[in-house]
Amino acid sequence: MSTNDATARRSVTLVDTSLRDGMSSVSHKFTPAQVAEISSGLDKAGVSTIEVAHGIGLGASSIQYGFAAATDPEYVRAAVEATGQADIAVLYVPGIATLAELGGAIEAGARTVRVAVHCTEADCAEQPVVWAREQGMRVMCFLMMSHKLEPAALAEQARKLESYGAQVVYVVDSAGAMVPAHAGARVAALREAISADIGFHAHNNLGVGVANALTAAEQGATYIDGSLRGLGASAGNAQTEVLAAAFDRAGWGTGVDLFGLVDTAERVVAPLMSEPQIIDETALILGYAGVYSTFFHPTKRAARKYGVAERDILVELGRRGVIGGQEDMIIDVAAELAGRGEKAEATR
Amino acid sequence: MSTNDATARRSVTLVDTSLRDGMSSVSHKFTPAQVAEISSGLDKAGVSTIEVAHGIGLGASSIQYGFAAATDPEYVRAAVEATGQADIAVLYVPGIATLAELGGAIEAGARTVRVAVHCTEADCAEQPVVWAREQGMRVMCFLMMSHKLEPAALAEQARKLESYGAQVVYVVDSAGAMVPAHAGARVAALREAISADIGFHAHNNLGVGVANALTAAEQGATYIDGSLRGLGASAGNAQTEVLAAAFDRAGWGTGVDLFGLVDTAERVVAPLMSEPQIIDETALILGYAGVYSTFFHPTKRAARKYGVAERDILVELGRRGVIGGQEDMIIDVAAELAGRGEKAEATR
Repeated sequence: MSTNDATARRSVTLVDTSLRDGMSSVSHKFTPAQVAEISSGLDKAGVSTIEVAHGIGLGASSIQYGFAAATDPEYVRAAVEATGQADIAVLYVPGIATLAELGGAIEAGARTVRVAVHCTEADCAEQPVVWAREQGMRVMCFLMMSHKLEPAALAEQARKLESYGAQVVYVVDSAGAMVPAHAGARVAALREAISADIGFHAHNNLGVGVANALTAAEQGATYIDGSLRGLGASAGNAQTEVLAAAFDRAGWGTGVDLFGLVDTAERVVAPLMSEPQIIDETALILGYAGVYSTFFHPTKRAARKYGVAERDILVELGRRGVIGGQEDMIIDVAAELAGRGEKAEATR
Repeated sequence: MSTNDATARRSVTLVDTSLRDGMSSVSHKFTPAQVAEISSGLDKAGVSTIEVAHGIGLGASSIQYGFAAATDPEYVRAAVEATGQADIAVLYVPGIATLAELGGAIEAGARTVRVAVHCTEADCAEQPVVWAREQGMRVMCFLMMSHKLEPAALAEQARKLESYGAQVVYVVDSAGAMVPAHAGARVAALREAISADIGFHAHNNLGVGVANALTAAEQGATYIDGSLRGLGASAGNAQTEVLAAAFDRAGWGTGVDLFGLVDTAERVVAPLMSEPQIIDETALILGYAGVYSTFFHPTKRAARKYGVAERDILVELGRRGVIGGQEDMIIDVAAELAGRGEKAEATR
């Protein structure tokens, strides 16, 4: 197994989201002291962008999305004070976050914002992207649930984001529904369409999060998201320290210290986890169906109520292409499947 | 995300090794009743080859490799009696197993044998391959630690195995040290060199086990190994039920029932696991260093004795290309690293 030392080594930039997307794994309950310790470990290992605060982004701490253990500015400040080199980033979901909250994050020291929209809704990103650029922030944009759009249509949305001022546009596999061919085709289409940098954010529901990131890089993505120990909703994200090792073995530079990441993952993050990030039935079926993980709990309730298997509901929801906000369809599908079941009984 | 229904669907055959390689995760202590229940679930889900018995193969139940909860023939018989369609397979490692023990497995109903040799030692497979073919068995061969040989050299070894009578030759990533490019290049070289079928056996230390299997299939492998919940040494194998979902999403047929596999994984296997298959520090460094997992415990002891970090020893062992049987080199490396450390101290 030889790496090709004769050619210049290709490289990617790892972005760690243990303290934002990973917050979902701890019910948004990392304390500012824990955020400081983990940020410090990431910073010393050379991770240059660290995303922090509530798992659903700025302003999400609420009954609906779960209360975090601290405010967004408290998290940002803890990370800023604990780090020397890294940029501290926050997530902005239009409709949940407000510009005032983003202003608060800037005051606390955030230098990068990631504006996340559903992959068909680039328009919703215009206002915060323009505003954040005016404040001098580095702006990245997320095209969430990117598996729902064919590559050419996704590239159209990316063009809009670039036109608003996004400096990095991410293909985000929110449901963990992509295999490497899907990830590669989408990144390649964006690479053709825009001159902004391209990022890739994986979830591991189909067991291929790290490989999707490798394929994304081969097709031109230069920013790769991960989280220590894979922290994140359902199967979790691509595991940052595993990304560092796998990219190295595949002949890519990441500029990070693998052993430094491993130390933070093993000795700081692992002891804080109440359960491991594994691919259990729910995680696998969500990825296979291509349904966002927020559908899981209401589906479980509907399954019980209508006496239908959760996975049958999830697969049917995926077939119908539901997106976040369409949770009411869960009941329709459950009722319909239950009806079919009764009919099947009656005609036996 | 569309699958191409216009063309004939490509397909692979999944082979499950939860009850052989996976035995390592339970210290070889699955009972014949558990083997029967899991085999039955796999068989009903359409898995056509199920490997059983001690994790190190026939004849390995001993002080050295750990005592299993039953004899090899007892395991084989339990699986044969619990299944309707599936072939029951056993592992034969020359130097550990004997032909008499293989004869006992045949008597108990095993119809397939997998003869496993280090990737440079195809010669050692000749006697058992020839003998097993004479008994009418289906014979597969494993080239273990395949990452240690460049593709062309590996293909030479595969040619020998085919000449002895192997019907399937496996590229085996024993250390979980490959990324998809490595897996693909090796399978492609074998595809050029032999006309026997090709298999791929992944470990997940670098988080790319499932993706290595997908890439292997794209390059011509038609047999893909996995285990339920990823059961197996260190990071474990490619997870059978995840393989089924990911191959489906990538446009490949596997002939298995995904939900049937998920049921057995979730309701039978998961409750028997004492710990989850995750990529912790040890698993990651073993894969990164490309060192076989049997080196782990002696390395831990040497690290303590010489006051050197385990991972520094493992990475150096990987650099020196150690193979199974060279465990004495661990002490040499630990002593040498300790010596360097002392010198570094002295010259500070």
